Amino acid sequence: MCGHCVMENVKERMLSRRNFFRGTVAAAGAAALGTGAARPALAQAARQIVDMTHELSEEFPTFGGVPGIRYDKQFDFASDGYNLYTLSIDEHSGTHIDAPLHFSPDGQSVAEIPVESLACPLCVIDIRARAAEDPDAQVTPDDLTAWIAAHGPLPDGACVAMNSGWAAKVGSDDFRGADEAGGLHFPGFHIEATQMLLEQTAAAAIAVDTLSLDHGPSPDFATHYAWLPAGRYGIECLAGLDAMPAAGATLMVGAPKVRGGTGGPARVMALV
Amino acid sequence: MCGHCVMENVKERMLSRRNFFRGTVAAAGAAALGTGAARPALAQAARQIVDMTHELSEEFPTFGGVPGIRYDKQFDFASDGYNLYTLSIDEHSGTHIDAPLHFSPDGQSVAEIPVESLACPLCVIDIRARAAEDPDAQVTPDDLTAWIAAHGPLPDGACVAMNSGWAAKVGSDDFRGADEAGGLHFPGFHIEATQMLLEQTAAAAIAVDTLSLDHGPSPDFATHYAWLPAGRYGIECLAGLDAMPAAGATLMVGAPKVRGGTGGPARVMALV
Repeated sequence: MCGHCVMENVKERMLSRRNFFRGTVAAAGAAALGTGAARPALAQAARQIVDMTHELSEEFPTFGGVPGIRYDKQFDFASDGYNLYTLSIDEHSGTHIDAPLHFSPDGQSVAEIPVESLACPLCVIDIRARAAEDPDAQVTPDDLTAWIAAHGPLPDGACVAMNSGWAAKVGSDDFRGADEAGGLHFPGFHIEATQMLLEQTAAAAIAVDTLSLDHGPSPDFATHYAWLPAGRYGIECLAGLDAMPAAGATLMVGAPKVRGGTGGPARVMALV
Repeated sequence: MCGHCVMENVKERMLSRRNFFRGTVAAAGAAALGTGAARPALAQAARQIVDMTHELSEEFPTFGGVPGIRYDKQFDFASDGYNLYTLSIDEHSGTHIDAPLHFSPDGQSVAEIPVESLACPLCVIDIRARAAEDPDAQVTPDDLTAWIAAHGPLPDGACVAMNSGWAAKVGSDDFRGADEAGGLHFPGFHIEATQMLLEQTAAAAIAVDTLSLDHGPSPDFATHYAWLPAGRYGIECLAGLDAMPAAGATLMVGAPKVRGGTGGPARVMALV
């Protein structure tokens, strides 16, 4: 698509979006992010709710390779009349979020992320074909530019999600992709794409269907260190992206409100 | 309001509701509950998202009176370059859900609750005036009948929530209401109201702004033992009900998907 066509495409889509919002109850109670324009929390009626969450158990793969949850049964129905566990949970296990505090000295904890940022227009960047050829593939600025050309500007408050096809590997060793030297291999966000999102958009979150915002072989967690201290948050091990449209769904990020938490397992749902 | 007026009121509201749905994208992907009629997941555009979750910390009051969460810091930004905790969490702490498995030998775990049941039309039963006079007050069948008379039938998949005004007491001893003998005093659902909801509605959940679905002095947890084994779930320590309309909001219940979990802290949000 040539530059002129891209611009025409963007203008056309922005116009149709404005007309769409005009027909709905779109005045936003949600806080404005970045651009100063109020954004609709949910500008359309949803028809379906989809679970975007993997089940968390001792068997779920983790970045460090050790179980992310342990169960200690305190009460049992047979003897006590009810069931209750104390759970020991590594905050960064299962489908979970990274709060800014995870990679900064004093960023927002999971409890401090504004609730408006937990309802996100979902923008899916599909790199499945490239990741199938290269487990170290990354989301690049070109991927973002292609998405924008096809769907219009990335909405304020968006969650920009990488679909690398990794969610389907969760039951196999390929999910971590550990090599003989202990290195990991799975896709993530390239630092240049991360910088582009920071500089040019008011996206609230980036999400990956893998174990880390940075791809497996990252030597420096460049995306973590750029994105999180900037007051934005991440989602790792997201499920269900294959069933999502590239644009138009809304992600609801149900991250428990733990004081001082650096993230934590969350129930992520999509309204489509 | 006389019986005839009640019926007319109900008919009028049902008619206006049908007309409202007709103008929206209301065909439901959500599973039908009880009545066989598909229900819309979200039949209207939401304007605002509201946090219905208390912050969870060691200080948050619990039924048993001991802290519901403990923090073990594994990595610190100053020395390790990032922050990370292992959290030890009693499943039934803070704003949390009770899965059917909590009070049954083999009911649904929190991971098994269908995602459609986590997006609930919110119906608020306001007993604040009565609870201000009597901390042991309960939601009764009369309260439910009055709500139905004013707002129409309780929707399939609803969360029927008691607003007793208790959320405002969370920082004081009045939240548990412990007496000198160790007994607790706070409002809850009367077993007869619970039975009415089980027999006459397809509500997915009941919610309370207190520490238990049963009121504090309950000798037998009658509401827990009736409601949860029937395959419905509960929400305890819900916040934010004062700002909710009696009808028309949608609750999104972000309960992490822990395999075998009997419940757990959740991020609960309302779309209004």
